[in-house]
Amino acid sequence: MDLATLLGVLGGMGVILGAVALGGGVLLFLNPPSLVIVVGGTIAATLIKFPLKHFLGAFKVALHAFRAHAEDPNKLIEEALKLSTVARKSGLLALENQKISNPFLKQGIQLAVDGNPPEFVRKTLTQDIDLAIERHETGQNIFKAIGDSAPAMGMIGTLIGLVQMLSNMDDPKSIGPAMAVALLTTLYGAVIANAFALPIAEKLALRSKEEQLTKSLILETIGGIQEGLNPRVMETLLKTYLPDGQRAPAAKKKAA
Amino acid sequence: MDLATLLGVLGGMGVILGAVALGGGVLLFLNPPSLVIVVGGTIAATLIKFPLKHFLGAFKVALHAFRAHAEDPNKLIEEALKLSTVARKSGLLALENQKISNPFLKQGIQLAVDGNPPEFVRKTLTQDIDLAIERHETGQNIFKAIGDSAPAMGMIGTLIGLVQMLSNMDDPKSIGPAMAVALLTTLYGAVIANAFALPIAEKLALRSKEEQLTKSLILETIGGIQEGLNPRVMETLLKTYLPDGQRAPAAKKKAA
Amino acid sequence: MDLATLLGVLGGMGVILGAVALGGGVLLFLNPPSLVIVVGGTIAATLIKFPLKHFLGAFKVALHAFRAHAEDPNKLIEEALKLSTVARKSGLLALENQKISNPFLKQGIQLAVDGNPPEFVRKTLTQDIDLAIERHETGQNIFKAIGDSAPAMGMIGTLIGLVQMLSNMDDPKSIGPAMAVALLTTLYGAVIANAFALPIAEKLALRSKEEQLTKSLILETIGGIQEGLNPRVMETLLKTYLPDGQRAPAAKKKAA
Amino acid sequence: MDLATLLGVLGGMGVILGAVALGGGVLLFLNPPSLVIVVGGTIAATLIKFPLKHFLGAFKVALHAFRAHAEDPNKLIEEALKLSTVARKSGLLALENQKISNPFLKQGIQLAVDGNPPEFVRKTLTQDIDLAIERHETGQNIFKAIGDSAPAMGMIGTLIGLVQMLSNMDDPKSIGPAMAVALLTTLYGAVIANAFALPIAEKLALRSKEEQLTKSLILETIGGIQEGLNPRVMETLLKTYLPDGQRAPAAKKKAA
Amino acid sequence: MDLATLLGVLGGMGVILGAVALGGGVLLFLNPPSLVIVVGGTIAATLIKFPLKHFLGAFKVALHAFRAHAEDPNKLIEEALKLSTVARKSGLLALENQKISNPFLKQGIQLAVDGNPPEFVRKTLTQDIDLAIERHETGQNIFKAIGDSAPAMGMIGTLIGLVQMLSNMDDPKSIGPAMAVALLTTLYGAVIANAFALPIAEKLALRSKEEQLTKSLILETIGGIQEGLNPRVMETLLKTYLPDGQRAPAAKKKAA
Repeated sequence: MDLATLLGVLGGMGVILGAVALGGGVLLFLNPPSLVIVVGGTIAATLIKFPLKHFLGAFKVALHAFRAHAEDPNKLIEEALKLSTVARKSGLLALENQKISNPFLKQGIQLAVDGNPPEFVRKTLTQDIDLAIERHETGQNIFKAIGDSAPAMGMIGTLIGLVQMLSNMDDPKSIGPAMAVALLTTLYGAVIANAFALPIAEKLALRSKEEQLTKSLILETIGGIQEGLNPRVMETLLKTYLPDGQRAPAAKKKAA
Repeated sequence: MDLATLLGVLGGMGVILGAVALGGGVLLFLNPPSLVIVVGGTIAATLIKFPLKHFLGAFKVALHAFRAHAEDPNKLIEEALKLSTVARKSGLLALENQKISNPFLKQGIQLAVDGNPPEFVRKTLTQDIDLAIERHETGQNIFKAIGDSAPAMGMIGTLIGLVQMLSNMDDPKSIGPAMAVALLTTLYGAVIANAFALPIAEKLALRSKEEQLTKSLILETIGGIQEGLNPRVMETLLKTYLPDGQRAPAAKKKAA
Repeated sequence: MDLATLLGVLGGMGVILGAVALGGGVLLFLNPPSLVIVVGGTIAATLIKFPLKHFLGAFKVALHAFRAHAEDPNKLIEEALKLSTVARKSGLLALENQKISNPFLKQGIQLAVDGNPPEFVRKTLTQDIDLAIERHETGQNIFKAIGDSAPAMGMIGTLIGLVQMLSNMDDPKSIGPAMAVALLTTLYGAVIANAFALPIAEKLALRSKEEQLTKSLILETIGGIQEGLNPRVMETLLKTYLPDGQRAPAAKKKAA
Repeated sequence: MDLATLLGVLGGMGVILGAVALGGGVLLFLNPPSLVIVVGGTIAATLIKFPLKHFLGAFKVALHAFRAHAEDPNKLIEEALKLSTVARKSGLLALENQKISNPFLKQGIQLAVDGNPPEFVRKTLTQDIDLAIERHETGQNIFKAIGDSAPAMGMIGTLIGLVQMLSNMDDPKSIGPAMAVALLTTLYGAVIANAFALPIAEKLALRSKEEQLTKSLILETIGGIQEGLNPRVMETLLKTYLPDGQRAPAAKKKAA
Repeated sequence: MDLATLLGVLGGMGVILGAVALGGGVLLFLNPPSLVIVVGGTIAATLIKFPLKHFLGAFKVALHAFRAHAEDPNKLIEEALKLSTVARKSGLLALENQKISNPFLKQGIQLAVDGNPPEFVRKTLTQDIDLAIERHETGQNIFKAIGDSAPAMGMIGTLIGLVQMLSNMDDPKSIGPAMAVALLTTLYGAVIANAFALPIAEKLALRSKEEQLTKSLILETIGGIQEGLNPRVMETLLKTYLPDGQRAPAAKKKAA
């Protein structure tokens, strides 16, 4: 569970609802037709931008933003070094029986165990990483697209409301409330974009970057194992994936 | 047929017309001179930006956004593996008689069958891909240009309307309706840009990216066939073009 | 003559003048001091941004946007194949007497005829292309700069007008007309940017891209001739510069 | 201590508080609910965008913007030349006993002393630099995200306030003050973004760039030492890291 | 002296002051507190963004925008060809006594005369160019930062003024003038950004690009001299740095 995402979504809603409640009635801010314009218009624009399949899959993708980042680079490096030691001692084939938790690492080790040459393994895995990034980008882009369209649709709604209000100003008393309603679509659009869609797109981008980093660490591991790199040399190389502060414990271990 | 594009265009129009109808008369929002300023001005600016030939071809290009994405990577991989097996068994020349559905794959196989060296085939096909991307970008750029110009022309129309209204405020009753009319061009510009032009440009960009991916899969296939790559090795390589979830069935097939 | 640019400029002016005339008097929109602020301010800002020589040359550069694109890739490919055939039959030196219309092709052929090694010819021509692009970019950038400055200067003019109006509101009757005048600079800025400067910059960018494509086709041609490439192989390579639809006629010719 | 950052933050606050105090009461500008909307909403959006750990670490990262840049390239070059001379005279191993202040230089020298081949040392250090840049970017991005969200949340707060005010305009006297309160969130958002968050993000980016430059100078040093480069040749190379004006003193030293 | 920059700065000030004077009193537009908010706030934000040293050096850097571009590529090419001829006739060492005006060319020739291998000279000079670009970018970025902050600070000032005015609307007569004063900060910010800071940043960027081009021409020259390139071949290469129109005179000279 990614607490930050959940806290952020609930906190954002809480703050906005609180502001709305404090100033009077919540009902003032509830206008179904306005909601239909903004949400419906945003969905329509997003449908034009993406294939139906991707659009329908967007909510499943959004869950990634709420799910916790599972892979701890420290553990992965430990596992990589263990595999590397096994391969040095008992040969590449001995890796076939090792239990490997990360599926991408497993796939890479399998490619190596199958006797594929290092360049081929590197090419396949690199291509796998690159194409996975492109697929992930589609997910982020849907939320970016929602974040772009919602304020635009909000503005369209407000313009429609203003034109209607301005064409019919016989009753001065009605001008204020009519304008309040016209502004609601702009408010809805701003909330959807800034409290949900754009931040979710950002978190998805970060998730994708983390995964890419993990995969590139794995790529390095497989390459090192195939080259028969000394595990201590490999440790030096893999430790660059950790921030300075986290490298120390491993150094202690090395000393032990 | 790309259902999403059609749904999006119709849905967007529906939502906006609904909002317009709900608030009173649709006629309020129909002002031919305003429409002429926004549409005419946008066409004029787009004509300056692009050659006449590209501009006239834009509507034909827009149809791509409504057409379904034909190429299923699964089928393409299957076809690639079949061709690769044939080439391994009976030589490159045997490919000449194979029925090949995808024209780019056909062109590449023809280049290989003609006895061109792999580097030349790769260079020709890569260049073909790159130059096709550039041509596709012109199509997208026309719709992006429309999406940029329409709101600007809408603003110009509103400014003209405001200047006219402000210069002649003798009758206070006429101020509201005059301002309503002035705002119409801004509304038209926002609708054209956000409910049509920009989303269409986005879908065209996605189409182009999909085609590019398909072509790069084909490039890989031709290269593999010319190198005489083992079909099972090739399958591993081509499967990276599929998301993780879709790779399983093929794995089963391999096991069979 | 690039009809599209001319149509666009005249059409844009027509639409805007029409809107102005329809709503009352054109004189309402003519305010020399406002024009001086926007045009003078934009010229001043552009002068700071660019060297005097480039600024003065901008109008000459703008003509490129009105001039027709002369080079037809089909004809160029035909000429390239003819030259290639001559070189294969009678040697590189035979090219010296060939009549070559495109000056860049002529320059390249001359370099080859002079006995320069292929790498040197490629380096010289590539560098020529790259540096020409940079020079063209200056031209586009001046119009982009005008398109950036004009709306800013328009806003500055409007702010000055508003401050003057707000400081002196004794006569309520004068508020409307004073504000109308204040808005004129914003209108001028928007028109200059969106109906002239930015679209012209875009067309110049397209021209530059077209020329670059032509030159890169020529680069390929010279390289092929120096390598003694088979004209039919070269045709395959050069045809990638054409969209799919235009390649067919050449194929027929090949068959003939 | 980075005086500029401190001066900037205090100066910005001073100028804004001065303007507030001058115009009347500071209390006018203090509205706790408005502050909660903008700060709370910005925190919520930032939490969605980043993992909790990074978010909590942001304040620690911000301190980098206040800390002085420690590494003087002149001193570093001097140290590099000293090490290079020692290595030339007494061999690489003699470097083990040298006192080295910069930890990255120390790490690199250690890698060289350990007998790792130059390509491995270069690869490890380059990777270390690249991955450190990515980690630093997260820090900058949090402040950029705050700078993006704060004005958006300010606008949302103002829209809420406007809707509440417009729905209830019975007492004309209350309109002005209500609108003043509504504008406060926009003001808060603009101040947070433009006087704090965005400038801090910029300074962090500069810090990261400086560190990267220092590290790349060190990379060059280690490479030169491993290649056994002549210290005078190395000086020429390293001096390119200094602006023209600062190179002279070293030249004098060389002459001495 | 770069006439364009001077004309632009004076012209911009003239146009704006003219507009101010024409509409009534210049005093109307002079409000010291408003000036303090915008200028002070902008300085504060810029101080946070940059180190003190760079900030203080910004005015010295700005002078580059007023100084004329000294290096004429035509003369430089002439000098390069002369040096190349000398080196071909009398050897590299003969260059030591040549008078060389451009300091970068001098430095490069010195590196060659000192007997450094071509790859080393190229690496040192390339690195010198790259690092000089980075240093120049800091100068441009300070002016870009000023251009970003000034309008934001102007908006903050206007918001403060509006809040103060709206909270105290007892005297309707004072509303207009109060709002005029509030708008002044926005006006100041827009003028600082669009008539000074952003254009100066642009000119500095152009200067940096010109210098880079000159240096890259020099790099080519030194390389050619070290390779012992034929001066006529070198002329062909260096002439690519000139626009088409300026190459002719040199061709005539060649013929003479």
